[in-house]
Amino acid sequence: MAYRLGDLAKRVGAELRGDADCEVVRVDQLQSATAGAISFLANRQYLKYLSDTLASAVIIPPELADRSPVNALISNNPYLCYAQVAAILHPSREFGPGIHHTAVVAEDAELAEGVWIGPCAVVEAGSRIGSGVFIGPGCVVGSGSSIGRESRLVANVTLCSRVRLGERVLIHPGAVIGSDGFGLANDNGKWIKVPQLGGVSIGNDVEIGANTTIDCGTISDTVIADGAKLDNQIQIAHNVEIGENTAIAGCVGIAGSTKVGKNCTLGGGVGLSGHLEIGDNVHFSGQSLVTRSFTEPGFYSGNLPAVTNSEWRKTVARIRRMNDMMQRLKALEKQIEKLNNGQKPV
Amino acid sequence: MAYRLGDLAKRVGAELRGDADCEVVRVDQLQSATAGAISFLANRQYLKYLSDTLASAVIIPPELADRSPVNALISNNPYLCYAQVAAILHPSREFGPGIHHTAVVAEDAELAEGVWIGPCAVVEAGSRIGSGVFIGPGCVVGSGSSIGRESRLVANVTLCSRVRLGERVLIHPGAVIGSDGFGLANDNGKWIKVPQLGGVSIGNDVEIGANTTIDCGTISDTVIADGAKLDNQIQIAHNVEIGENTAIAGCVGIAGSTKVGKNCTLGGGVGLSGHLEIGDNVHFSGQSLVTRSFTEPGFYSGNLPAVTNSEWRKTVARIRRMNDMMQRLKALEKQIEKLNNGQKPV
Amino acid sequence: MAYRLGDLAKRVGAELRGDADCEVVRVDQLQSATAGAISFLANRQYLKYLSDTLASAVIIPPELADRSPVNALISNNPYLCYAQVAAILHPSREFGPGIHHTAVVAEDAELAEGVWIGPCAVVEAGSRIGSGVFIGPGCVVGSGSSIGRESRLVANVTLCSRVRLGERVLIHPGAVIGSDGFGLANDNGKWIKVPQLGGVSIGNDVEIGANTTIDCGTISDTVIADGAKLDNQIQIAHNVEIGENTAIAGCVGIAGSTKVGKNCTLGGGVGLSGHLEIGDNVHFSGQSLVTRSFTEPGFYSGNLPAVTNSEWRKTVARIRRMNDMMQRLKALEKQIEKLNNGQKPV
Repeated sequence: MAYRLGDLAKRVGAELRGDADCEVVRVDQLQSATAGAISFLANRQYLKYLSDTLASAVIIPPELADRSPVNALISNNPYLCYAQVAAILHPSREFGPGIHHTAVVAEDAELAEGVWIGPCAVVEAGSRIGSGVFIGPGCVVGSGSSIGRESRLVANVTLCSRVRLGERVLIHPGAVIGSDGFGLANDNGKWIKVPQLGGVSIGNDVEIGANTTIDCGTISDTVIADGAKLDNQIQIAHNVEIGENTAIAGCVGIAGSTKVGKNCTLGGGVGLSGHLEIGDNVHFSGQSLVTRSFTEPGFYSGNLPAVTNSEWRKTVARIRRMNDMMQRLKALEKQIEKLNNGQKPV
Repeated sequence: MAYRLGDLAKRVGAELRGDADCEVVRVDQLQSATAGAISFLANRQYLKYLSDTLASAVIIPPELADRSPVNALISNNPYLCYAQVAAILHPSREFGPGIHHTAVVAEDAELAEGVWIGPCAVVEAGSRIGSGVFIGPGCVVGSGSSIGRESRLVANVTLCSRVRLGERVLIHPGAVIGSDGFGLANDNGKWIKVPQLGGVSIGNDVEIGANTTIDCGTISDTVIADGAKLDNQIQIAHNVEIGENTAIAGCVGIAGSTKVGKNCTLGGGVGLSGHLEIGDNVHFSGQSLVTRSFTEPGFYSGNLPAVTNSEWRKTVARIRRMNDMMQRLKALEKQIEKLNNGQKPV
Repeated sequence: MAYRLGDLAKRVGAELRGDADCEVVRVDQLQSATAGAISFLANRQYLKYLSDTLASAVIIPPELADRSPVNALISNNPYLCYAQVAAILHPSREFGPGIHHTAVVAEDAELAEGVWIGPCAVVEAGSRIGSGVFIGPGCVVGSGSSIGRESRLVANVTLCSRVRLGERVLIHPGAVIGSDGFGLANDNGKWIKVPQLGGVSIGNDVEIGANTTIDCGTISDTVIADGAKLDNQIQIAHNVEIGENTAIAGCVGIAGSTKVGKNCTLGGGVGLSGHLEIGDNVHFSGQSLVTRSFTEPGFYSGNLPAVTNSEWRKTVARIRRMNDMMQRLKALEKQIEKLNNGQKPV
């Protein structure tokens, strides 16, 4: 559908410089855009593509607006403005409500209006599905789970029992929510399973990536607060709590009972030990190993970046010999003390 | 269902202090329990909740029994005792046997008594399913696989061909057992697939977490021995062997043909190279990189924990300059030797 | 099916030493082979099994051919030769074309000849499926996707919308291709989703492991080039590009927009930051953290291997004290300068 730039600018609160009647129908990148597309410049790395762009319009920060060769939507946060424009021009796939004839829905499941349940999806006993919910092909909604309105399970998502989703939750394929936590008691060398009896409580506007797993709590719930965003392949263990608007990149693992505050960011591959307290506004760079609590806001890191293998071998060898260096340093200090006639060096 | 404390104590071999006729119906945490609940104290971190607990009873070690304000089940291993009590009060969801009308079961599959095959599950040709097995919605059991009695595939589990499960195996959603190993031969730069012809052999009482993957062997089998416990998102490559009662935390990756002994524990995110031998009773802390065999029992570690980013930047810079430090140290040693009139410092 | 050694040698271009009429029916390992099996020796670690092997024939390099006690297929690349022989003796499971009656195929999907669509599989609107394609049980092929001829989705694979697969692509269970990238714009602390509008373009002869995830691009496509091989549990973020014949081991994570060249190898658990350029013929060892571009061919590494926990604690402590060592070293240098009567030490 085509939108007038004047209307778009009004809807997203941007200032328009140029032709309000120009129409755009899609977003595109500066370097590949053609007439009818609106593009954006949020990162100066792409400034080189601006002067030659064939886009009909560009979303741009004020300080660069003069350099746009085409119509401009001026915004202090061009990436956010782009996100809003893209959502207007490219709305999510619409769906008509209904239950596919191959879906299996328990008789006592409560379904609100406008729900779609796709082919080969299964909704078990005692589930409550809010209005406008999309349950894609192959999804399983376990007994006693509830899904808030306008939430969307894309495909092949598994909700186990006692999972409660808020509103507008988006879950990507292969994600598993509410699987048993890894609770084991040792009985003379054999592991005895500790029953995992809690649920998972997920707030509103949460997004959960493909093949991410979130275990149920042991007794009380595992909790993901409103607005938290989880990428793919993340592992959240039992009784973890994730605060509001915290964003977690792919391949992160968080061990049991650890609490992460609000507005945190965890880089890809970060690992957190169990029973930690991570405060609000704490940020970890990729692959950090987190073995203690960090309650102060800040940016934390912990892994050695890759170098050439030969340099690396030397580094490992030197680290192994650090004790020897320290001994030699101490020996020198004694020698010098002697040379100074027994006086401690100043 | 309600249980008398006297009966519970007898069943789990604990000593009862208090009212044998008091009935409990559920487990709960010390701080949230109310009448009818039994709680436990296994970690002194939670001792602060003991005096005010409203639980009807507490499972507690002997040395703390005097401090319980309520009925006590006294046990030297309160966490194990709790696991047993929880399993009694909260048994696994029961299921009636049957085959859902949307399940697809090959004509020649052999099904013992009491099997449940859920909606949209698929059981391929030549499979043998033991008595009391639960195959949840969306599961696929590949051709020629066998599942020992009372095993349970929760939902959306995939067993490829030639997978043999023992008895009482529990597999959580999204797990994939028997996928092709990553076997490639190089033909002048192009990778040629090496057919993966082996199976996977899984012992009794094994638990496998959500979205964990276990590849089949190249020729012989990949082997997971009795009582091994695998958490979520683990990758087990072809021809790996995991010993009895070894417990592996989430996000661990084990490369091809590595053998891990009995009673080992691998912390979250640990990575093991291929073709290693790990002995019995070996323990690795989280995110350890294991590049050589460890045959001796012990506790091993290998990653730098996170610190503030500014401290971290200094650490990386210092490590890069270690060679320079060593050179300066050697220069000093020579200087001192000279100052000592040519005598080596003592 | 039985093959004459003479015929096999001709088909794979190996030199036969021995009985051309001897027939083999399967491959096996040197130590477990019996009559009718052909084995191979590609790694001298297994030379100890050669003299006693009961195999009917052995694939072996020229320099060891004299030591074979049985018929020999002599090859300069015995592992490659083995792969070819195994593929001849153990061809992939054949399948008759057809659509299982429980599969759900959109009316407008275009299906070429010889396609198999398994139980409970779903093929959405606008899909194009090439000849001889196998879509296993529980797979979902999203709207507007296309699959090149002779590709195979084993089971429970999810292709989201706008996924284009080349020919002979092999995808293992649980893999998710085309899920939304992790694109978020920050609006005063709240995360706003950036619509993910691109697709995924996968070349010919690509293999994708179990539970691996590949996100769609934000505007343009995520690209996996011809002949690339991806193991299990890998995370490929939006707009990543992987070059031809690059092989990626399990548990690797690659952040958004990073480009990896041709003929690279990434060891297990490697993590690459976003927006990097990795050249051709670059190799990273397991668990490397890659935070900058590497454009030169070479072998790179970056993680500390595990040692005993006590040694490790000392190492961490020493690294924390490196600054102190440096200060003491500088103090010594000044002392010596003074002792040298104000002359800088030579």
